[in-house]
Amino acid sequence: MTTTRADGRTPSELRPVTIERGWSDQAEGSALISFGRTRVLCTASFTGGVPRWKQGSGKGWVTAEYAMLPRSTNDRTDRESVKGRIGGRTHEISRLIGRSLRAVVDMKALGENTIVLDCDVLQADGGTRTAAITGAYVAMADAIQWARGQKLVGQRSRPLFDSVSAVSVGIIDGVPMLDLPYVEDVKAETDMNVVVTGRGLFVEVQGTAEQAPFDRSELDTLLDLAVAGNADLARIQREALGYDPLAPAS
Amino acid sequence: MTTTRADGRTPSELRPVTIERGWSDQAEGSALISFGRTRVLCTASFTGGVPRWKQGSGKGWVTAEYAMLPRSTNDRTDRESVKGRIGGRTHEISRLIGRSLRAVVDMKALGENTIVLDCDVLQADGGTRTAAITGAYVAMADAIQWARGQKLVGQRSRPLFDSVSAVSVGIIDGVPMLDLPYVEDVKAETDMNVVVTGRGLFVEVQGTAEQAPFDRSELDTLLDLAVAGNADLARIQREALGYDPLAPAS
Amino acid sequence: MTTTRADGRTPSELRPVTIERGWSDQAEGSALISFGRTRVLCTASFTGGVPRWKQGSGKGWVTAEYAMLPRSTNDRTDRESVKGRIGGRTHEISRLIGRSLRAVVDMKALGENTIVLDCDVLQADGGTRTAAITGAYVAMADAIQWARGQKLVGQRSRPLFDSVSAVSVGIIDGVPMLDLPYVEDVKAETDMNVVVTGRGLFVEVQGTAEQAPFDRSELDTLLDLAVAGNADLARIQREALGYDPLAPAS
Amino acid sequence: MTTTRADGRTPSELRPVTIERGWSDQAEGSALISFGRTRVLCTASFTGGVPRWKQGSGKGWVTAEYAMLPRSTNDRTDRESVKGRIGGRTHEISRLIGRSLRAVVDMKALGENTIVLDCDVLQADGGTRTAAITGAYVAMADAIQWARGQKLVGQRSRPLFDSVSAVSVGIIDGVPMLDLPYVEDVKAETDMNVVVTGRGLFVEVQGTAEQAPFDRSELDTLLDLAVAGNADLARIQREALGYDPLAPAS
Amino acid sequence: MTTTRADGRTPSELRPVTIERGWSDQAEGSALISFGRTRVLCTASFTGGVPRWKQGSGKGWVTAEYAMLPRSTNDRTDRESVKGRIGGRTHEISRLIGRSLRAVVDMKALGENTIVLDCDVLQADGGTRTAAITGAYVAMADAIQWARGQKLVGQRSRPLFDSVSAVSVGIIDGVPMLDLPYVEDVKAETDMNVVVTGRGLFVEVQGTAEQAPFDRSELDTLLDLAVAGNADLARIQREALGYDPLAPAS
Amino acid sequence: MTTTRADGRTPSELRPVTIERGWSDQAEGSALISFGRTRVLCTASFTGGVPRWKQGSGKGWVTAEYAMLPRSTNDRTDRESVKGRIGGRTHEISRLIGRSLRAVVDMKALGENTIVLDCDVLQADGGTRTAAITGAYVAMADAIQWARGQKLVGQRSRPLFDSVSAVSVGIIDGVPMLDLPYVEDVKAETDMNVVVTGRGLFVEVQGTAEQAPFDRSELDTLLDLAVAGNADLARIQREALGYDPLAPAS
Repeated sequence: MTTTRADGRTPSELRPVTIERGWSDQAEGSALISFGRTRVLCTASFTGGVPRWKQGSGKGWVTAEYAMLPRSTNDRTDRESVKGRIGGRTHEISRLIGRSLRAVVDMKALGENTIVLDCDVLQADGGTRTAAITGAYVAMADAIQWARGQKLVGQRSRPLFDSVSAVSVGIIDGVPMLDLPYVEDVKAETDMNVVVTGRGLFVEVQGTAEQAPFDRSELDTLLDLAVAGNADLARIQREALGYDPLAPAS
Repeated sequence: MTTTRADGRTPSELRPVTIERGWSDQAEGSALISFGRTRVLCTASFTGGVPRWKQGSGKGWVTAEYAMLPRSTNDRTDRESVKGRIGGRTHEISRLIGRSLRAVVDMKALGENTIVLDCDVLQADGGTRTAAITGAYVAMADAIQWARGQKLVGQRSRPLFDSVSAVSVGIIDGVPMLDLPYVEDVKAETDMNVVVTGRGLFVEVQGTAEQAPFDRSELDTLLDLAVAGNADLARIQREALGYDPLAPAS
Repeated sequence: MTTTRADGRTPSELRPVTIERGWSDQAEGSALISFGRTRVLCTASFTGGVPRWKQGSGKGWVTAEYAMLPRSTNDRTDRESVKGRIGGRTHEISRLIGRSLRAVVDMKALGENTIVLDCDVLQADGGTRTAAITGAYVAMADAIQWARGQKLVGQRSRPLFDSVSAVSVGIIDGVPMLDLPYVEDVKAETDMNVVVTGRGLFVEVQGTAEQAPFDRSELDTLLDLAVAGNADLARIQREALGYDPLAPAS
Repeated sequence: MTTTRADGRTPSELRPVTIERGWSDQAEGSALISFGRTRVLCTASFTGGVPRWKQGSGKGWVTAEYAMLPRSTNDRTDRESVKGRIGGRTHEISRLIGRSLRAVVDMKALGENTIVLDCDVLQADGGTRTAAITGAYVAMADAIQWARGQKLVGQRSRPLFDSVSAVSVGIIDGVPMLDLPYVEDVKAETDMNVVVTGRGLFVEVQGTAEQAPFDRSELDTLLDLAVAGNADLARIQREALGYDPLAPAS
Repeated sequence: MTTTRADGRTPSELRPVTIERGWSDQAEGSALISFGRTRVLCTASFTGGVPRWKQGSGKGWVTAEYAMLPRSTNDRTDRESVKGRIGGRTHEISRLIGRSLRAVVDMKALGENTIVLDCDVLQADGGTRTAAITGAYVAMADAIQWARGQKLVGQRSRPLFDSVSAVSVGIIDGVPMLDLPYVEDVKAETDMNVVVTGRGLFVEVQGTAEQAPFDRSELDTLLDLAVAGNADLARIQREALGYDPLAPAS
Repeated sequence: MTTTRADGRTPSELRPVTIERGWSDQAEGSALISFGRTRVLCTASFTGGVPRWKQGSGKGWVTAEYAMLPRSTNDRTDRESVKGRIGGRTHEISRLIGRSLRAVVDMKALGENTIVLDCDVLQADGGTRTAAITGAYVAMADAIQWARGQKLVGQRSRPLFDSVSAVSVGIIDGVPMLDLPYVEDVKAETDMNVVVTGRGLFVEVQGTAEQAPFDRSELDTLLDLAVAGNADLARIQREALGYDPLAPAS
């Protein structure tokens, strides 16, 4: 593919991705992640105990909340706290992040502990939910490492059995493209968010025909792009962490 | 595949599907649809005018709201009106239904009119969102037919350019299966809702690894099952309607 | 009185009333009741235990919730769950249904169990609250019968000591009439909902001068009509049930 | 009847009723009314214009809001503003007060003006809604008189065509009694609120079998008591006003 | 200073202040306080026990809620209960009242008991928060006296170690003035609420430049005025109480 | 004063203050400000038009919203959007920030434009409201500069007539101290937030006796400290801006 995009990337190229670990002095794990101009602050809060409906199960719990600062967008959007209710999109993304991260956690190994992932979008330029998942994994890995250091989870237990990341793909003017910024996102005929583990397995595939239903071969091409993009993200996550969070604690 | 399910179906068989058109005396279109024991009342309300942000565009609007009666479930669930807020799942499904139906409507041909689809689950036994989409299409087709009779949309305009239906698929004990009732749904390792048009194109693919991430070949098998199931549903929709809603008005 | 109404009834005649018992596969008791075109789905949910303020009293509790589907009405009304608050009318009717049904239940005999009656109006054409009370009684009777079968209430205890039903009456163009559909309801000078037990005693008398205050003799005539209408409804309830819910379990 | 009550009254006697007109310096009409220890501050706010759905009708509007101060009751009750929602009882009573006062207003004569009646219970000892209706009438009469003085309503128009008051009645230990304080209210087998105009016509009859369904003769006796009690209240209202609000302005 | 104000006062004079103790028959302590036309009903509810986060501490808790009746103001304001949320101003004042009263209570001597102060503005003409604090102190003192009588607090313990009152001061047309009614309040360049104890110590100083930032000498003059005004209020509180609430119980 | 604090500062020393201008690519003005470990992202959104109640006045409007990220604190706090209501503290601080910034804006010169200041606390270690005011001033100055560049405000008009900043002061163990971090804040007997303009005038003085009422000389010492601290902050703001926002546009 030789199409060039507004930002100079090839169709199968990620935007510059940076991950700043430990951005927060207070959270057990944290990461400020950028996918180009999209910036999301991810914190992982590790606490003992689980919600009532899991008590006594011997298993842990992982959940997530996503939100956008009012001026993370080009025009200011009203705060959901001021409106007094959380919108459907926010709910939907929070649930997606939670499911994605739970997919790589062995709840038994986590023990009766809870990890809450807060993903706050400081600046939005497309792909906020995929950046959030990718950054939240790093924050969660650090929180688990912290818990091991504190002996809050067993030294031999391996709460993480895989890594997880996410990326968007879409078809614009007939060309499948990876990691869409806002200007591409609004033009996409089809838009898909794909969550993949470090081992290359699918956790979530959410494809939507924004403007035109798509056929099987388009779907296949998009999935190929997404799998390759997530392999890059898994590598970037590993480099950011600088240790292997899947290994048993030594 | 020779596995037999609790209800006697083969893995690639739909539950008995019935569509009772015109269940409501008041709505412009309505359908009481059953997927086995799951029963959803779908009404289509056709009104002139569009929301403020579409006024003057010459285009129409289609939106949907989904809800469950408190005792549609095995244990009673609290009403969202009493709790004072709509949950994430409700929001997410309402948005899915709206997007799915908009995918087959030519908003220009609809003109500045709005169709609201209300999908109320009277009894829930898995697949409520897929039954809702499938039934809402029938209700919407009838509402458009009504609007043509009332000359509220142009006689030569064709607001519908395709039909749409949805079905769930999942992997249970390693076997891919079509149209999961509640007992299968809770056991599924992977669960996918697939929205397909009458012409066989994808509108939404929403796959989730509930218990175990899935690989590409599992994904392919699930998509095959879903496409075949939706072809059956498209036929059942045509039979229920008894006329061709895609044809220009005579 | 020889006045004929739009639907051909005499002033003292009920609309056709049908009661479909066991409409729900999941509730302990249920009834889909019609008063003409008004259709209400009533479910009774029987659960062990009572609200905190009744615990340890040895007595049970019965409560009700009423709601209308958005397109049960001629014009679509917004969902109360979406508006985020329950309107005054909904509250008022829910409370009325609850009080009416508690009036025929011996809470001591029910024991520390709770019955929640959900009355959801699927189609509204006047008299939704009276149909709801009349149908909820049937659902409740079946739920108690179910509880006896499950030995959740004592075999010799008689939680029900009477039946209960309700009907509307009103004065239209000076003529007192029974069981008003929507077109009559909006024209009524005076409107009254009367809840009466099978033995002919009053549970609730709610008369409102919608357009003109009324005198004592008008009030008396309306009460006579309502008592006679409720006697018919009590008979229809007995026939629908096909057994005597007031008898001690054998 | 020779039964004597805890407070020394005969069964057919009202509690001492006082009406302090013009309690508020700011409202167009106001009255602090007492039924024994029950004290309600009623203000009438007269403003030009009507709600959107009445605009252009040439008719006015009257509405009411009822509330209790948190420590008007024996035990403190939480504020509805703090709970974030208005309870069913509050809604129900606000609606009752509004309907009762609209019953004596000629909306055509009022013109496109709105009167809002605020009834705030400063101290509660049973009968708060009946005191509120009785006091709100006085506040409303003064607001209309004020509007005449301001020439906001026609000098020859007569917006009020009757007065209105309300009183509770109930059966306690088999004895029908008038105007129940709290201690009697909780013991009443049957409880009825009756709203009657100065000419003796019924506006609202709301009877509830709190503990035991009641028969026709009990109902008749209660209505007799209520009519007599309201005749007393109408006289007290006239004396408090000191002018005839039903007369055309001179 | 010889400037005369619209109501004839000198700049350093309070409006007429009246305190009617025991206005409520039900609260453990109550006071209807007037600062000119501003009238606030303050009740103190004394109950055993403390909020969860103080349990076991051996200490008590004091909190306050402030609200305005809808027609306490010149134009009617909507009820916060109807709007479903409490406004920022209400929250802010409730918190101020609570902090001010806690400043003179020895929580250890109060024991694990809670006092809730409800300050409801019946009529507003400026200075509602300062009247509320001043009146709430009297209500609280009486509630503590009541609790001593009931032996709910130790006879030798002295829960109150000082009195507390509040007054507003402001600069109008360059002249510092005490206790601003509404007409002065809206004209003030600078507005300050000062809460002072009977011993003359500061509890809260809240100065705001409404129209023009102020300098240190203006600040000093305003503080002098406020301290003198509060000394007057402390005397009026003592006279209203007629006993010394700071003395140990005899 | 020779007392040394935990972080090595003298009592009259600010924490290290940094201001990163233009942190956001999208807002018309923005600043990421740090007071030690406290970090607040301030954005200024400049839009044409004013709220309804100011339309036609020829004057502009400035308002602010403050919020904390859930894990900005040491223990995670629930999101106000999830709780569905904004707490009293949040409301109070938002109002304080808005008033403080309005105090240095000439609304006539701003014209009918609105500036919304969003202050989101990314990390909290005491003094979040004072950092927010100080940073919001810088963001606002840049937004006004942007508007001048866009010719949205007159070239000769000077919407800003002074700068504004804020700092906390308190008495800890009897020693007055400047700019309290969290550990000092919780120990303070008295806590004061003081908002001062670049010219040294007071905008807000909010002093609270957290543990012990304070006398006049303590108040004076605290004000002196605060004035000096704000002079430092004004210098840091000027250096961060690098231009004079009070000068008329050239």
